[in-house]
Amino acid sequence: MADKLIIFDTTLRDGEQSPGASMTKDEKLRIARQLERLKVDVIEAGFAVSSNGDFEAVQAIANAIRESTICSLARANDRDISRAAQALADAASARIHIFIATSALHMEKKLRMTPEQVLEQSRQSVRFARNLVGDIEFSPEDGYRSDPDFLCRVLEAVIAEGATTINVPDTVGYAVPELYGNFIKTLRERIPNSDQAIWSVHCHNDLGMAVANSLAGVQIGGARQVECTINGLGERAGNCSLEEVVMAVKTRRDYFGLDLGIDTRHIVAASRMVSQTTGFVVQPNKAVVGANAFAHASGIHQDGVLKARDTYEIMRAEDVGWSTNKIVLGKLSGRNAFKQRLQELGVSLDSETEVNAAFTRFKELADRKSEIFDEDILALISDESVSCEKEQYGFVSLFQQSETGEQPRARIVFTVHGREVRGEARGNGPVDASLKAIEAHVRSGAEMVLYSVSAISGSTESQGEVTVRLQNSGRVVNGVGSDPDIVVASAKAYLSALNKLQSKVDRVAAQG
Amino acid sequence: MADKLIIFDTTLRDGEQSPGASMTKDEKLRIARQLERLKVDVIEAGFAVSSNGDFEAVQAIANAIRESTICSLARANDRDISRAAQALADAASARIHIFIATSALHMEKKLRMTPEQVLEQSRQSVRFARNLVGDIEFSPEDGYRSDPDFLCRVLEAVIAEGATTINVPDTVGYAVPELYGNFIKTLRERIPNSDQAIWSVHCHNDLGMAVANSLAGVQIGGARQVECTINGLGERAGNCSLEEVVMAVKTRRDYFGLDLGIDTRHIVAASRMVSQTTGFVVQPNKAVVGANAFAHASGIHQDGVLKARDTYEIMRAEDVGWSTNKIVLGKLSGRNAFKQRLQELGVSLDSETEVNAAFTRFKELADRKSEIFDEDILALISDESVSCEKEQYGFVSLFQQSETGEQPRARIVFTVHGREVRGEARGNGPVDASLKAIEAHVRSGAEMVLYSVSAISGSTESQGEVTVRLQNSGRVVNGVGSDPDIVVASAKAYLSALNKLQSKVDRVAAQG
Repeated sequence: MADKLIIFDTTLRDGEQSPGASMTKDEKLRIARQLERLKVDVIEAGFAVSSNGDFEAVQAIANAIRESTICSLARANDRDISRAAQALADAASARIHIFIATSALHMEKKLRMTPEQVLEQSRQSVRFARNLVGDIEFSPEDGYRSDPDFLCRVLEAVIAEGATTINVPDTVGYAVPELYGNFIKTLRERIPNSDQAIWSVHCHNDLGMAVANSLAGVQIGGARQVECTINGLGERAGNCSLEEVVMAVKTRRDYFGLDLGIDTRHIVAASRMVSQTTGFVVQPNKAVVGANAFAHASGIHQDGVLKARDTYEIMRAEDVGWSTNKIVLGKLSGRNAFKQRLQELGVSLDSETEVNAAFTRFKELADRKSEIFDEDILALISDESVSCEKEQYGFVSLFQQSETGEQPRARIVFTVHGREVRGEARGNGPVDASLKAIEAHVRSGAEMVLYSVSAISGSTESQGEVTVRLQNSGRVVNGVGSDPDIVVASAKAYLSALNKLQSKVDRVAAQG
Repeated sequence: MADKLIIFDTTLRDGEQSPGASMTKDEKLRIARQLERLKVDVIEAGFAVSSNGDFEAVQAIANAIRESTICSLARANDRDISRAAQALADAASARIHIFIATSALHMEKKLRMTPEQVLEQSRQSVRFARNLVGDIEFSPEDGYRSDPDFLCRVLEAVIAEGATTINVPDTVGYAVPELYGNFIKTLRERIPNSDQAIWSVHCHNDLGMAVANSLAGVQIGGARQVECTINGLGERAGNCSLEEVVMAVKTRRDYFGLDLGIDTRHIVAASRMVSQTTGFVVQPNKAVVGANAFAHASGIHQDGVLKARDTYEIMRAEDVGWSTNKIVLGKLSGRNAFKQRLQELGVSLDSETEVNAAFTRFKELADRKSEIFDEDILALISDESVSCEKEQYGFVSLFQQSETGEQPRARIVFTVHGREVRGEARGNGPVDASLKAIEAHVRSGAEMVLYSVSAISGSTESQGEVTVRLQNSGRVVNGVGSDPDIVVASAKAYLSALNKLQSKVDRVAAQG
């Protein structure tokens, strides 16, 4: 029987660390459910000690997910580890992921500790965690740039203390495949008890080689776990992308010879959910999940594709969940058809109240838009779940007008803690005027650092989905809003971002 | 002395083959100038025989560029090769790139030729081309999936006929680094005259490994040319990305030990130019050129970065042309300041008339927008150069209004071959209404397959840049428009797409 490659998804932890990608508890829970549907082996749900919000998200995911192992990150100290264990208490299968930096640069400049102190703290923290949870992963941060002799001592020690998975991060994305694969091979050969742990790879994409580095760690190094994120989300150039690594192992099974537990048919839905939630667009030429990934344009290639599909296709679009026949609902569709489509889309709403609220919004939308696509339904659900949370600000109505030669103007009505307020302003464009009309009341002082719109199903007849990224006092949040009128969608996105800015105030920096 | 790695950019040929990425002659010329500034060794400017437009673009680039070799693609037949030679006649340094498929699948299903016929045609075409141009590149299409014995015969034969560069494409993105590197190594070892050609790699990113595969071809296989595109533009998941492969070789010089001619400080400007021209967005977590590529968010990393920059940074943002201090112009800036900024941004306009027209638009913009950023200037130039071409449709003015509870409406005035027409319509949103008002007259029958907006410098106070992708009778075009009012920008983008649909009518499929 072939070895199994364990897929460890860290979209909700390392992915969320990306500036602007922070998510609410409900958003994280929805993505965790999709990851479970994908049959991801391990879901890293957060960094429990970093904030109350993170703790609650890890806890909620540990309670809700039954099929995947749920993991929380922790620094190598008792407080972090206790808090992680507490958040994971109700998980069907729990893992604590302990990390501490081991490169000379990081130990000296960031930790200000000697190597002997780091070794001792690593040992003690695994010993402490082992009494709380049986499944312990240990990561030497910046491991790939660490002194191999020292790293061998640390890793041997933590395996002896009971660490069951050893993860070797290329924290700064500096590796090349051959060197990274051999680095892991050498560690495994030199460390006497290395066979008592599963080896794992964690690569960043700064030089565009995260997938190849991860797979060299597997093929040359013998690692059997890959850490990755949906859409390659993550700080800087992001992490190894789940969809790419999974499809490479599957498509090139002749070379890798490994089994995977992943149900690839849910990949595209997962990609869309993460991109809609975070507002991080997926470029058209992104492998597997980009809009063009399975499209052909040039005369030559179209001709080739017509003659024999595998002349230019090594994967089938439907295997990763691209479907050509999008089922369309309309204003005559009933509650049952709507509910059934939700199920087919993999959306599970928690209560009948939520289904009813979503259905009401569906009918409102169907009055204004003749054909409802899957993307519309997913956007509606996102929107709905946002508005289910306790909101400070809510959208009511908008008037706006622009005419060449005059300054655009807008009047908006929105609620502040349930009370209606009105604002009026002029701006550079109708969107700018609408947001200024909100700010005339709110005076958040936030700076807008990103604004983007995409049409949910391609054309301007569809709903526009707007992402607004705001920055205030070092915090960055994304708000997302959708509506057939993109000026309205922009106002909704802005209010949603303001709500998030508010709810994030209590979050402390991860390292105190 | 270290070997030099030749950078062969095919943004204008393989990149342009991406559905929706087609560019006008002027756009190609502008990008070619930026590639020359980058000091790209070879610019593949197009596929001269494929259309009159392509022929003229290759010719214009061959005339304008002096520092880079200019290359045209050609199938392995006399007509294609003659046409390529003709387009390249005035180049300072010219190359003809001949390709023919060599995999069993492609020969049988696409070419419907026997291997012996393919061998003979390869030989004859190189012999023919060698009499026209001294610099001949030969590509066995789908080479990586070809029978090695047959491939050795073909490649030995074309080198004997005088091919100076041998390029081995992984046409369908099926390779993994170790196998691809060894494939090229084996070819070079088995082919007796292999040392008489420079070997080249051409990888696609379907499994997310184009960069690593290319570099394995270099490191293991001994290739000394990499074919790549800006932003990894290209069909499906795109080509190997220039910025990633260049920065990997530069950052890991300790491993690769190769010299590069590239001036990396022009990378970000090239990336923006290609993305603004084609409307293909660059995702924030794209390596090197993504908006987040050099940003850090988590508490831990921010702390690390503050303590020592190289704890998390392996490249410097300024080395690839990210600059933190964007110089801002305003309504009081004069023509000289504007012209100087254009030069600093690497934009060279062909005539004083063009500079004057751009400056007029700059003043108009400055009246409506208090701070003008570099991105605004670049957008303005793109817009300007579009309107300098002979246009069928031109924007004049727009009125639009939307109010919650009523259907949005728009009235537009635009020109058709210089004559003003008016249109009025209602729609799902103000943008939809505006475009329907255009279609009320034009009746193009085109289907909109993509609509996206981004704010040029992040906030809604800035200009919105809209991309509209239209599809009609198998042709796909992108239109781009910018304006502080995104409804106006959308109308401009739509008119620009209609103009492109019109100008592309004469283009024939690449394989007849």
